[in-house]
Amino acid sequence: MAASCRLKPLSCVAVSGGTHGNEMSGIFLAKHWLRNPMELRRGSFAVTPFLGNPRAIEKCVRYVGRDLNRTFTTEFLSSTEAEDEPYEVVRAREINQTYGPKGSAQAFDFMFDLHNTTANMGACLIVDSEESLLPMHMCHYIQTHYTRSPCPIYLYKLPGEETYSINSVAKAGLTLELGPQPQQVVRADLFTQMRDLMACALDFIELFNKGTVFPAFEIEAYKITGRMDYPRYSDGEISAMVHPKLQDKDFLPLNPGDPIFQTFSGEEILYEGNTTIYPAFINEAAYYEKKVAFAKMEKHMFSIPGLQRE
Amino acid sequence: MAASCRLKPLSCVAVSGGTHGNEMSGIFLAKHWLRNPMELRRGSFAVTPFLGNPRAIEKCVRYVGRDLNRTFTTEFLSSTEAEDEPYEVVRAREINQTYGPKGSAQAFDFMFDLHNTTANMGACLIVDSEESLLPMHMCHYIQTHYTRSPCPIYLYKLPGEETYSINSVAKAGLTLELGPQPQQVVRADLFTQMRDLMACALDFIELFNKGTVFPAFEIEAYKITGRMDYPRYSDGEISAMVHPKLQDKDFLPLNPGDPIFQTFSGEEILYEGNTTIYPAFINEAAYYEKKVAFAKMEKHMFSIPGLQRE
Repeated sequence: MAASCRLKPLSCVAVSGGTHGNEMSGIFLAKHWLRNPMELRRGSFAVTPFLGNPRAIEKCVRYVGRDLNRTFTTEFLSSTEAEDEPYEVVRAREINQTYGPKGSAQAFDFMFDLHNTTANMGACLIVDSEESLLPMHMCHYIQTHYTRSPCPIYLYKLPGEETYSINSVAKAGLTLELGPQPQQVVRADLFTQMRDLMACALDFIELFNKGTVFPAFEIEAYKITGRMDYPRYSDGEISAMVHPKLQDKDFLPLNPGDPIFQTFSGEEILYEGNTTIYPAFINEAAYYEKKVAFAKMEKHMFSIPGLQRE
Repeated sequence: MAASCRLKPLSCVAVSGGTHGNEMSGIFLAKHWLRNPMELRRGSFAVTPFLGNPRAIEKCVRYVGRDLNRTFTTEFLSSTEAEDEPYEVVRAREINQTYGPKGSAQAFDFMFDLHNTTANMGACLIVDSEESLLPMHMCHYIQTHYTRSPCPIYLYKLPGEETYSINSVAKAGLTLELGPQPQQVVRADLFTQMRDLMACALDFIELFNKGTVFPAFEIEAYKITGRMDYPRYSDGEISAMVHPKLQDKDFLPLNPGDPIFQTFSGEEILYEGNTTIYPAFINEAAYYEKKVAFAKMEKHMFSIPGLQRE
């Protein structure tokens, strides 16, 4: 990678709340911004807020037909209308039409996506990979300027995997994943935290647009390597819970031999991997059906080149 | 009230898990007991475990058609089959047939009901009223013998209100309401706590059945006096969140003038009542649709007469 990169200023920026219809911080923030759009304006740009999945929001469920945030792949975006297709496929095409098309020159410059998790992940910043220069600089700026809590960086893209998330339709994106918060609940502390993180991110864009030079840096981030399912009975029902010693320990080291599950009868199940990992999304409500008890993460240091506008 | 009462020994005892299909401690406990029934046996009796709302459990939602735990009133229990009636009305009649009929001599002697809340209510014991002698003795026994955490007593019946809960079909009942736990999540710590509380309650029944004399006592309990809705916009949408100073403060005193809500723009809304109350079910996920931000409780001391078996 070059020691420094130049990118165009960001003029078209959007933020989605309610990509999942029961994650309330972003839903109430987006609704608040739709009533009070001034809060999303800066000198050089303004952010367009929108509700990701309005039908799911109305029912206060994660999704109606299928997970919207797994629907932004070529397969779904290029599909033709069909009568029995899930609502989210229709909605993904709409969003791609409005803020994309994905991969095109017309696509929005940047999209924020606001989420909550039941896991104890704090103020987590999710980026597709460390190669996304502008988002990595944004994370660095947030970590430096938002000092009320740590903001771990989660790199979600597995090698060779196609991007599938809502903000992959824009040229770049950042997902805020705040927790722990139960589904269908809005906590004032997390609402305020999400709003402050957004304000900090917009300050970064404003500085970038106005020509600030951001030097190269080294940064720690967690990169996904795989996922761990729950132990299950032969009928598919889970047979064990996340171990109390692992519960709430997102982004802390898990070593070979450490307990990870406890069966309903009380037996411990130990981690059999060969290396230390850093679990995240531990005991996330929505991931039972995805067969994910936690995401397996490695901790790395990355060298990020400098950045300034063209 | 008499200074001491004699009641028949308890032979028919049941426990429902999954009366709400997304409250996971009771669901996984009931399923565990259905696989391992010995855990619910004592010398003088055995408990029958069952799944309260199987269809809701399968979908991992609170209910399919209407809240099952508000369906055990004369209106629903005496209704005749209709094609368009909600599933839970059918299910309530089934449960009433099996474990009741409500108010009859054939009804089960006792029913436990296992719940979770997203509110910070700890190991809460819910009884209809302080006049329910055997459940109050059971609560007293649990408070004395289960010492890992406080077990506040919540008296749920408003004056003049008909009982509507699932365990009202039995002659007496106790509801365990453990939190905080997100919907659709099972935490090992709360699972173990619920199992231990049940074991303690069964020990009490065994002692009672075997002739132990339980003397009169004084006990503190929280009695509901009403419910507080969220502030709302004219379109019905909520316009404020539970205030961060009230969040997680279940069963702690709330005084006139204390903040209770924070609008999405950041203004405080203060409590305008005349007396100190003790809120509970603060920010419970399932109560947004019931228009309840918290239950208003009074704290009282009650004198409970002695108890022994006939």
